[in-house]
Amino acid sequence: MRYVMHLSYDGTSFNGFATQPHQNTIEDISNRVLSKIFDRDIKIIGASRTDAKVHALDQVIMFDCERLIPPHKVEMAYNNAVGDCIECFKCEITDEEFHVRYHVQSKTYLYKVITKRDPFMRTYATYHDRKLDLVQMQKACQQFIGTHDFTSFCTEKKTATNNIRTINYFHVNSDAEGIITFEINGNGFLYNMVRIIIGTVLMIGENKIASEQITEIMAKKNRIYAGVTAPPEGLYLKETIYQK
Amino acid sequence: MRYVMHLSYDGTSFNGFATQPHQNTIEDISNRVLSKIFDRDIKIIGASRTDAKVHALDQVIMFDCERLIPPHKVEMAYNNAVGDCIECFKCEITDEEFHVRYHVQSKTYLYKVITKRDPFMRTYATYHDRKLDLVQMQKACQQFIGTHDFTSFCTEKKTATNNIRTINYFHVNSDAEGIITFEINGNGFLYNMVRIIIGTVLMIGENKIASEQITEIMAKKNRIYAGVTAPPEGLYLKETIYQK
Repeated sequence: MRYVMHLSYDGTSFNGFATQPHQNTIEDISNRVLSKIFDRDIKIIGASRTDAKVHALDQVIMFDCERLIPPHKVEMAYNNAVGDCIECFKCEITDEEFHVRYHVQSKTYLYKVITKRDPFMRTYATYHDRKLDLVQMQKACQQFIGTHDFTSFCTEKKTATNNIRTINYFHVNSDAEGIITFEINGNGFLYNMVRIIIGTVLMIGENKIASEQITEIMAKKNRIYAGVTAPPEGLYLKETIYQK
Repeated sequence: MRYVMHLSYDGTSFNGFATQPHQNTIEDISNRVLSKIFDRDIKIIGASRTDAKVHALDQVIMFDCERLIPPHKVEMAYNNAVGDCIECFKCEITDEEFHVRYHVQSKTYLYKVITKRDPFMRTYATYHDRKLDLVQMQKACQQFIGTHDFTSFCTEKKTATNNIRTINYFHVNSDAEGIITFEINGNGFLYNMVRIIIGTVLMIGENKIASEQITEIMAKKNRIYAGVTAPPEGLYLKETIYQK
């Protein structure tokens, strides 16, 4: 049986999604909990790696197990054991052809910025104390849309990798409380790509970089020309969209 | 000079407002920070004591100091030193006749309940896994309005105390996401009074107590007849209203 689970988690107290020696990760915790539930050695595969402190509204994971436990019971047992920072809100048995990583059509991320200190948002948005020009940032977002080489906007230095990705949409808005929310959707994201793009757009919002420079930065294919990597706590993996 | 400061804080990691030997309280931290800013021994007085894990959207504190520092500088220095779980959003020098405790006209508290697990709300609302009858709870809230002896709804056992308080309004609503929010305003609240009232109303919502029983419970003047004390994490001190 191939089980697929949808998780949301507050990433504040975890060291990210992917397994690490100290095991304080979504992957390690899920493997531990599910192995206990199934009384088998379960190894999950996640749709996306999220960094330490990054949140997920819908992270998709899968695992195979020959033992059948009704999915709603797996969901309940998982939620009871996993602690209150993680929640499984959907669990199902799927076609064994389906793969959470290979069949991704696109992924959507949110990034939240607050410009006023707020004790209740300190781990859920990035506090930015300088004035941001929303119109400049909206213009900047437009420049990323389309198919580009994102080498300048990723941390990995492996030159052999194909760093061409397609951004389908990217917009930014500010709500009544002054919370600035970016939403970006693309067919895939390189390591730290969302955070470096956001960090660059924030520098454009502060008028430290002109929005017209983005094409130039892309052409350089070198990380040093882009802006700083924005902090993790404002980032949310919102959704993974699969091929039909 | 009498300084008055308005604070908001995420109470999750504090042991409440009032000073304690280990000093992890809003009062102790504020005394420490302000004493350093003024280079004098500052002792603040707060409008309300909040329990461990209880939040405040607007807690009012005051202190006297003969040294003059412009209030906006005090606010900035306090915010820089106090950590990101507390924020001062207003600081002013007032008439020395004004007192944050003696001139209170009424106080408003919010209490939030979620009926669906949510990793992002775990310290900001109480998770209640049983179905709640909103109409019954709305009826129950009405019974508390007016001037009553609230001995049954407080933790303190001191019989000499005057336990008569007036509730001006008390209502409960549910939003589109299923978050249930109680709002209660009164001229004063006894120790644990809001949490015991909410705990009782939640039991009415579960049909464990009939809403008509509230008058009876009040008449007993004995804590054991009321419902359980609701957990602290859903409670917010919203506002303190002062006499003109």
